[in-house]
Amino acid sequence: MRFLIVNAAQVLSFQGPDRPRAGEEMRKVGLYRDGAVLVEDGKIAAVGLRDVVMRHPGADAARIVDAGGRILLPGFVDSHSHPVFAEPRLEDFAMRIGGKSYAEIGAAGGGILSSVRKVRLATEGQLVERLVDWCLRFIECGTTTLEAKSGYGLDLESELKMLRVVRRASELTALELVPTFLGAHALPAELRERPADYVKRVCEDMIPAVAKEGLARFVDVFCEKGYFSEEDAGKVLAAGAGAGLKAKVHAEQLTRSGGARVAAKHNAVSADHLDRAEADDLEALRASGTVATLVPAANYFLATAYPAARRIIDSGVPVALATDFNPGSAPCWNMQFVLSLACTQLRLFPEEALVAATINGAWALGLGKTHGSIEVGKQADLVLLDAADYREAAYYFGGNLASWVMKKGKIVHSTSHMTPFD
Amino acid sequence: MRFLIVNAAQVLSFQGPDRPRAGEEMRKVGLYRDGAVLVEDGKIAAVGLRDVVMRHPGADAARIVDAGGRILLPGFVDSHSHPVFAEPRLEDFAMRIGGKSYAEIGAAGGGILSSVRKVRLATEGQLVERLVDWCLRFIECGTTTLEAKSGYGLDLESELKMLRVVRRASELTALELVPTFLGAHALPAELRERPADYVKRVCEDMIPAVAKEGLARFVDVFCEKGYFSEEDAGKVLAAGAGAGLKAKVHAEQLTRSGGARVAAKHNAVSADHLDRAEADDLEALRASGTVATLVPAANYFLATAYPAARRIIDSGVPVALATDFNPGSAPCWNMQFVLSLACTQLRLFPEEALVAATINGAWALGLGKTHGSIEVGKQADLVLLDAADYREAAYYFGGNLASWVMKKGKIVHSTSHMTPFD
Repeated sequence: MRFLIVNAAQVLSFQGPDRPRAGEEMRKVGLYRDGAVLVEDGKIAAVGLRDVVMRHPGADAARIVDAGGRILLPGFVDSHSHPVFAEPRLEDFAMRIGGKSYAEIGAAGGGILSSVRKVRLATEGQLVERLVDWCLRFIECGTTTLEAKSGYGLDLESELKMLRVVRRASELTALELVPTFLGAHALPAELRERPADYVKRVCEDMIPAVAKEGLARFVDVFCEKGYFSEEDAGKVLAAGAGAGLKAKVHAEQLTRSGGARVAAKHNAVSADHLDRAEADDLEALRASGTVATLVPAANYFLATAYPAARRIIDSGVPVALATDFNPGSAPCWNMQFVLSLACTQLRLFPEEALVAATINGAWALGLGKTHGSIEVGKQADLVLLDAADYREAAYYFGGNLASWVMKKGKIVHSTSHMTPFD
Repeated sequence: MRFLIVNAAQVLSFQGPDRPRAGEEMRKVGLYRDGAVLVEDGKIAAVGLRDVVMRHPGADAARIVDAGGRILLPGFVDSHSHPVFAEPRLEDFAMRIGGKSYAEIGAAGGGILSSVRKVRLATEGQLVERLVDWCLRFIECGTTTLEAKSGYGLDLESELKMLRVVRRASELTALELVPTFLGAHALPAELRERPADYVKRVCEDMIPAVAKEGLARFVDVFCEKGYFSEEDAGKVLAAGAGAGLKAKVHAEQLTRSGGARVAAKHNAVSADHLDRAEADDLEALRASGTVATLVPAANYFLATAYPAARRIIDSGVPVALATDFNPGSAPCWNMQFVLSLACTQLRLFPEEALVAATINGAWALGLGKTHGSIEVGKQADLVLLDAADYREAAYYFGGNLASWVMKKGKIVHSTSHMTPFD
């Protein structure tokens, strides 16, 4: 199937170097006014000025998509989420408003372990049903690729169940899910006092089982005081590497705990959160080519200080943005709102935020060569935003401007009040 | 036409006293589990437990709406917005990210006066077209009544044009627009140095003309240092009262400027913003029965400190929440996001936020007897949220959970993937 997308007021291609964008490169979106895109067999066959694309072989036989003066972007690549859960954490939410601390909420039966209890009790089918609903919401808002972590199982069977749920939901919807094994998310209640035993189970039982079933592409660890130490994290990442899983790290979120250092040492594709990162951490990440993935929706929801995004960009570390969608700290699936947070709270320019939410998100998943930009040969993951200028994507907030979404060359969402075909 | 809405997991009726809710009353939502609502001739004919409503005369002949286990709320009443504008202020947005101050943005041609220039140049038809688009977005997100201010005209003809645009859009869509004359929003460039002359024009030319054409229900004034003094505001509100327009006031937003005091003195229905309000201001508002309308989306967008909402509630002043939808400081049409801000940043409980966004919003528009709650005899303005617990309305953020909207007994929005009829 061939599509020729025309009449877009702006096409943002994000063409650029064959590596994550850093520093000044993050200001470049690769804009074509009245541009066009030719899609063939699920891939971008041509992109550029309308007249040039129209002369491309095959363009004359393509089905026309009239963009109606809207903005064409690559689909958002959301590189950090925990989307497999049984229930929202509404009690935690009310307790936090009432002034309860994280520790008090945990003591009252809330926190990560409450999600663990419910995920362990849920059937695979129940979790699939919920995740499919979320996948549809992500697509509606323009996300075409989503990383999805385990980590609410914390025992072998429950972690495998979560990752099987991710695989199944990926088959049932058009959203591409990239699975990450996060067994080292918290200590399960039954091993609360025996962290070394749990790390051993993660490394020796879970990682080999996950790898054997081909259930994850990445291994991740919550490197944090009271969770997993820098040394623990090193063990988990090394075990993952031995099983073919690339590294991602939850780093320097609540305290400065060595996560960035261990991420750099293990050549992680990304170090995520970084609220407490310092200059040394950034230098280590820059040197290792690790992407800094910022998740400001979690700062917003918990009303904690935002990471020093400008300093991170100035240090030369490539930045990605992600939702961190999860029931405890970021019940938000809309990358457009993350763009708003990035611009209004982190002081990123709209161009930087868009680069971070698309092509740099793809690099944070090791997919930079095939996803995240509108370049010839890449997967045709595209979004039309109901706007006349790309900056509106970050300017308006709390709503959804995505009105048409394509994944791998197939139309997977369209609002009812538009007519995509001539 | 009769509708019987059944199978809602929760119906929030907000039944209560015949005045704005204050203090502890703001925690009461009036919840029916597995409740039902009978709608007849555009009004609520019965609400309560399913079995009771089903026995109500006429219920057997009603068309069934299956709520599918979702949550039924009154439509949101958004009591503060500036929705008539020609263009988003994207340059201001980028300048602010780059660190420019409000004054520097104004000097560079931005700010309110840039919206004024563009509104003056736009035709009535162009502005109607834009406003209709916004109205549809408000409805989609569950807002059924919206206050709409003038104030980007700042001369007689342009102010009348804006209010005619509001009237026309109200005729063209299902969203109920409540018009407010805000000629005293800023000094027009041509009278920058002659504030007294402009106040005179507002009072002697504009207010009579607005009233004569029946174009507004309220008069509002931006009482603020460098805009309109407490004394100016008093003159404008008095002239409005003389012409039959009730008072609303932009009060204590950037500085403490006497807005709350003048609002109380003139028995305003609401004093809005209140970021800098002090104890005396709150006491004055409490005594005059004026609603405090908080607009945290503006604080969010400008990254300024949020108002002391808990202190305002504790002082006994009834609180409403509104979007403040406008191109300069709050390009947000979704009241669900305002609920999120209220809970995560202002530390309102979900119950308080919902009361503030519905029945207290109605009181802030003088519509408390007919709008804002699901009570027998009131207008049937209803929303189904795709959730199993009403707290989810404030917990999830950045998206839209509204999946079905009724205005005055007519279905005005429904997502395509649901089946409202049995």
